[in-house]
Amino acid sequence: MSALIHEDRLFPADPGTRAIARRLYQSVKDLPLLSPHGHTDPRWYAQNEPFPDPAQLLIVPDHYIFRMLYSQGIPLADLGVPSADGSPVETDGRKIWRRFAENYFLFRGTPTRLWLDDTFVNLFGITEPLNGKTADVIYDQIAALLTRPEYRPRALFERFNLEVIATTDGALDDLRWHKMLRDSDWKGRVVPAYRPDAVIDPDAVGFQANLDTLGAISGADTGTWQGYLDAHRSRRAYFKSFGATSSDHGHLTAETANLGEAEAKSLFDRVRSGKADAREKALFRAQMLTEMAKMSRDDGLVLQIHPGAWRSHSAEILQKFGRDKGFDIPMQTDYVTALKPLLDCVGLDPNVTVVLFTIDETSYSRELAPLAGAYPALRLGPPWWFFDSPEGMRRFRELTTETTGFYNTVGFNDDTRAFPSIPARHDVSRRVDSAYLARLVAEHQMPEEEAMEVSQDLAYRLAKRAYKL
Amino acid sequence: MSALIHEDRLFPADPGTRAIARRLYQSVKDLPLLSPHGHTDPRWYAQNEPFPDPAQLLIVPDHYIFRMLYSQGIPLADLGVPSADGSPVETDGRKIWRRFAENYFLFRGTPTRLWLDDTFVNLFGITEPLNGKTADVIYDQIAALLTRPEYRPRALFERFNLEVIATTDGALDDLRWHKMLRDSDWKGRVVPAYRPDAVIDPDAVGFQANLDTLGAISGADTGTWQGYLDAHRSRRAYFKSFGATSSDHGHLTAETANLGEAEAKSLFDRVRSGKADAREKALFRAQMLTEMAKMSRDDGLVLQIHPGAWRSHSAEILQKFGRDKGFDIPMQTDYVTALKPLLDCVGLDPNVTVVLFTIDETSYSRELAPLAGAYPALRLGPPWWFFDSPEGMRRFRELTTETTGFYNTVGFNDDTRAFPSIPARHDVSRRVDSAYLARLVAEHQMPEEEAMEVSQDLAYRLAKRAYKL
Amino acid sequence: MSALIHEDRLFPADPGTRAIARRLYQSVKDLPLLSPHGHTDPRWYAQNEPFPDPAQLLIVPDHYIFRMLYSQGIPLADLGVPSADGSPVETDGRKIWRRFAENYFLFRGTPTRLWLDDTFVNLFGITEPLNGKTADVIYDQIAALLTRPEYRPRALFERFNLEVIATTDGALDDLRWHKMLRDSDWKGRVVPAYRPDAVIDPDAVGFQANLDTLGAISGADTGTWQGYLDAHRSRRAYFKSFGATSSDHGHLTAETANLGEAEAKSLFDRVRSGKADAREKALFRAQMLTEMAKMSRDDGLVLQIHPGAWRSHSAEILQKFGRDKGFDIPMQTDYVTALKPLLDCVGLDPNVTVVLFTIDETSYSRELAPLAGAYPALRLGPPWWFFDSPEGMRRFRELTTETTGFYNTVGFNDDTRAFPSIPARHDVSRRVDSAYLARLVAEHQMPEEEAMEVSQDLAYRLAKRAYKL
Repeated sequence: MSALIHEDRLFPADPGTRAIARRLYQSVKDLPLLSPHGHTDPRWYAQNEPFPDPAQLLIVPDHYIFRMLYSQGIPLADLGVPSADGSPVETDGRKIWRRFAENYFLFRGTPTRLWLDDTFVNLFGITEPLNGKTADVIYDQIAALLTRPEYRPRALFERFNLEVIATTDGALDDLRWHKMLRDSDWKGRVVPAYRPDAVIDPDAVGFQANLDTLGAISGADTGTWQGYLDAHRSRRAYFKSFGATSSDHGHLTAETANLGEAEAKSLFDRVRSGKADAREKALFRAQMLTEMAKMSRDDGLVLQIHPGAWRSHSAEILQKFGRDKGFDIPMQTDYVTALKPLLDCVGLDPNVTVVLFTIDETSYSRELAPLAGAYPALRLGPPWWFFDSPEGMRRFRELTTETTGFYNTVGFNDDTRAFPSIPARHDVSRRVDSAYLARLVAEHQMPEEEAMEVSQDLAYRLAKRAYKL
Repeated sequence: MSALIHEDRLFPADPGTRAIARRLYQSVKDLPLLSPHGHTDPRWYAQNEPFPDPAQLLIVPDHYIFRMLYSQGIPLADLGVPSADGSPVETDGRKIWRRFAENYFLFRGTPTRLWLDDTFVNLFGITEPLNGKTADVIYDQIAALLTRPEYRPRALFERFNLEVIATTDGALDDLRWHKMLRDSDWKGRVVPAYRPDAVIDPDAVGFQANLDTLGAISGADTGTWQGYLDAHRSRRAYFKSFGATSSDHGHLTAETANLGEAEAKSLFDRVRSGKADAREKALFRAQMLTEMAKMSRDDGLVLQIHPGAWRSHSAEILQKFGRDKGFDIPMQTDYVTALKPLLDCVGLDPNVTVVLFTIDETSYSRELAPLAGAYPALRLGPPWWFFDSPEGMRRFRELTTETTGFYNTVGFNDDTRAFPSIPARHDVSRRVDSAYLARLVAEHQMPEEEAMEVSQDLAYRLAKRAYKL
Repeated sequence: MSALIHEDRLFPADPGTRAIARRLYQSVKDLPLLSPHGHTDPRWYAQNEPFPDPAQLLIVPDHYIFRMLYSQGIPLADLGVPSADGSPVETDGRKIWRRFAENYFLFRGTPTRLWLDDTFVNLFGITEPLNGKTADVIYDQIAALLTRPEYRPRALFERFNLEVIATTDGALDDLRWHKMLRDSDWKGRVVPAYRPDAVIDPDAVGFQANLDTLGAISGADTGTWQGYLDAHRSRRAYFKSFGATSSDHGHLTAETANLGEAEAKSLFDRVRSGKADAREKALFRAQMLTEMAKMSRDDGLVLQIHPGAWRSHSAEILQKFGRDKGFDIPMQTDYVTALKPLLDCVGLDPNVTVVLFTIDETSYSRELAPLAGAYPALRLGPPWWFFDSPEGMRRFRELTTETTGFYNTVGFNDDTRAFPSIPARHDVSRRVDSAYLARLVAEHQMPEEEAMEVSQDLAYRLAKRAYKL
């Protein structure tokens, strides 16, 4: 292993505890990867074409990276981030890469650094630290490898030991790439996940047209409440037919509602007519989370709720560069009041699975662990987004385990568009959980043989069970 | 000591720090237990009858246990939890025990596991880990011991080295068991605590009738504001005559008020007439916290405020099984605004003691430590409920000590109905505080001789002083 | 070094990690001190007179100290804290010192204890622990030293290796002491910081008269909105001419606004007429933060925002003793919504620097790190006030680094009136950051040579760059 990454990275310094962590990690490090929630492009696996140059692969699409560089004064255009208004941006991958390399020190102490160093070493065989001096050599080395067959998506999927990966697909998506995959002779398991925000959020761009399209492709009358629900049922069944086991919902809040039939119908009519005000739109989104949960009861799709991000906080960045540019900022998120209507509806049903995520860590011990430690339908998703990091994972365990245990959690999600980083992300999770368990063992809170079992649960079995993979 | 529990459990892994922790712990582990806040039944000590079977003793009444099992899909009825509607539940202790034993792995990483293993070893002499295979043998062993005289409540009280235990008793309670104890020749000190929620919360079941009863037993006219206050004074005096040193209040929020006499009288009249609206009811509860604080100034009872739990969050569980079934969920709790009226009234009086608890850990460093580090009347209660746990206790010290020191805290409360677990709970607290202090010593923030003194303060002296025991 | 303080204090106990921490600390411990934000009195340096007796120097002005003693029942008057109403207070320094010494144990586990022990040893050569028995001897020893020339302010400034210190000065201040310093032959660099709360907050005492004065000294017409803004520009330029590089703003909330010209003018007219209601006053404060940011864009002063403290929470303390008596209590603070108007105005400008502080730690990982990790104009101030402490600093790094890195933070601020404690405060910061970095090195998250570089950035270079010193 290169000096860039150490075989004991992320393990506690105390030698006794480290030895335990090593043993726990050894027992899970080679388990297959389950990726039940992520954002890779199904087209990659379907077409299996080579990835583009190193900058287009690793820098341009990664908002963790370009937002940090931007926060230190480097223009997004200089990093090749596509503009929304067509104004020119850097297209020379080598120049982008050099800017990144010269500023790689900015990522000290961040998970991006861990993921990239791991990727450099284990995927690309790099042995030198990245900086302004080594930028070109490393660029060339990666660029050369990307042209090889064993660096195409399907080969990497297999190399990564991925047992299954879920993509995230809009309700209106025809799943053509999944179809192509199904019809191919490749055995890699790539499944869609149902993400209906564009036909649930009345503030989504083109919402009314989206509902028209939803009607057209589902054969249901999306001019009526029941027809609209039927259209969702139809699409969910379609997604299931391609292996989907989950839906995903990115609402601003965790608000849910459970209106009576007449009220819900009337609310839908307001929304469908385009006359709904802000409160009615929010109520509709809230109602639809509960409707999705009720459909989950029937069709078994796992419901994932990802609330709390103020998307595109900077108006200017949104206008010039569009969404997902690193300006999504977490907000205080209430779950206890917000989820009650949904929970009163399906929360006691052990056959329903609702996975809750948060980017407001204050909710871990105060709300999420107590809720998941009581309601049979609730499970806690792994630390999300900013908290998909060593400290974030450690805090997650420390703040939730004593109240909700390990078995109300669902293992790891890599939740990423950055395909090459997937093994590194799972590895960080397996290391940090090993370190956490090692401390419990070293402090005689758990025998090592039980920690070994928990370790495998966290790395593999819990995700498999929760997501029905 | 059995392999089930290790003599160094909960001590830091670093050998040097562990050695310090051991020494600190040695100096406190045999100190008498003070239990100034708890929920054991005074009838146990008064009648001194044998405890029922292992399941009825350890599983059925413990919401920490059955809510975790329920969260993983095991019906409450199968665990013997009594239904509110009379529908049948499991009554076979052995069957309940087996279900629990088979799922004991769910408690890995939780304090329940620590408490139970300690109880199994130290109270019942168990040497095998509990699981489906050992369930029956362990059940039999505990059941046999429970029939012996040395496992009756008074014998256990003495075995546990309890110096004093407080029960929690409604304002209308006649304290008959405390009377029986006072009239007995047993020397164990069991004192009541005044818990007047049922005559303070206008939303309490039977509130109006409760006030009638309060009038009848106190001889005061609870149809008037002054008579109502007199009735409280009378009951507080009655409780004091049985050794009470504290009152306890479980409000949803920490809201307090300090209305003028006329306003307070008028508010009481609205409440007494049953016509108060939600806001008036809340204001009445708020006003009564301040009234209780004013009475504390006169009679010296320590005022304990336990806010922030949304009781019985699931409507269906409340209906089918009643209160206290593990569905109490913490909420964001404000103290700074909420307590100001009470603090402007009595907060600067060093002869008043108001002990604040929280289940919203965000308030530790932001609100509670700064408040208790300034107002002479304020003290911080130990980590409560979900946070009566190793990580919870560690965070409490880390988040409060630097701002409020050790001497504005009040030692440990076991706060439990689970009598057999009391020594284990105190032991966890003594170990975790020893570990925390050992780190301060190892990092040269405090000399060991001072840590030794603090250790004894935390384990014994602070509770004795704060609760006037 | 005395037994009172250990050369390895605040370093991790694990021997391997400690060795790394030692090396990192060695590389920064003798770097010059930069103090870009503090509250020492410029008069001290200008007049260079001896400091008064030990109690007046160390106890009476330090609200960390007297609030803790007060919280345990010791009257403020007995500690010499001046009354607001002229009622008598203790003036005998020796008596005050004895009360403090007898209760020095209350500070166990607090940063005050660390700072004072360091000051006792390193500044005053004390070798015995302070307590009731040693109180007089230590008092005499310090008192004797304070009469010597080498304990006068300028000599201490040099002894402390201060490269530059900023004071905090009201907008109306004539900066006479800074002028005297500029005209002196002493080379110590003491610069003002622009703190205009008294002419920005309509609730400030004497606000209207303050604006009259502001007009008089700036030559601008503070009866009009543009004249008022011109007056600020004029004063900022005046402060800059004495070396100021920053402004500082202590608002209750982080609320900002960016009104159109007509609205802003109309709002100013309401405020200036004294007819503004509470909402308008708040809006004016909000607008003025954005105006200050816009002026920063022009004149380069760094904008520091310190929100979230409910000042003088106890009405009685405020009345009897005035402001800054330890009764300032943190409140929940929102940044994401509050700062948006300011950020939409100047947030993307890399030439603007807005430094954000908080005393609501929940905002570190949820709001502040994500905001500063995106907006080029934002930087995170060091842990403030209650969190200027070992645990506070550790949490700051753990909660912010993974999202915003090290380079969006600005090094240490001592933020103190307690001049003798300045070296101890910087030393704590350098030790705690060394300990944090040592853990990253020991866990193989960062090579030691990079940690060495970061260590020096945190101790010196980041403050120099962010504050343009």
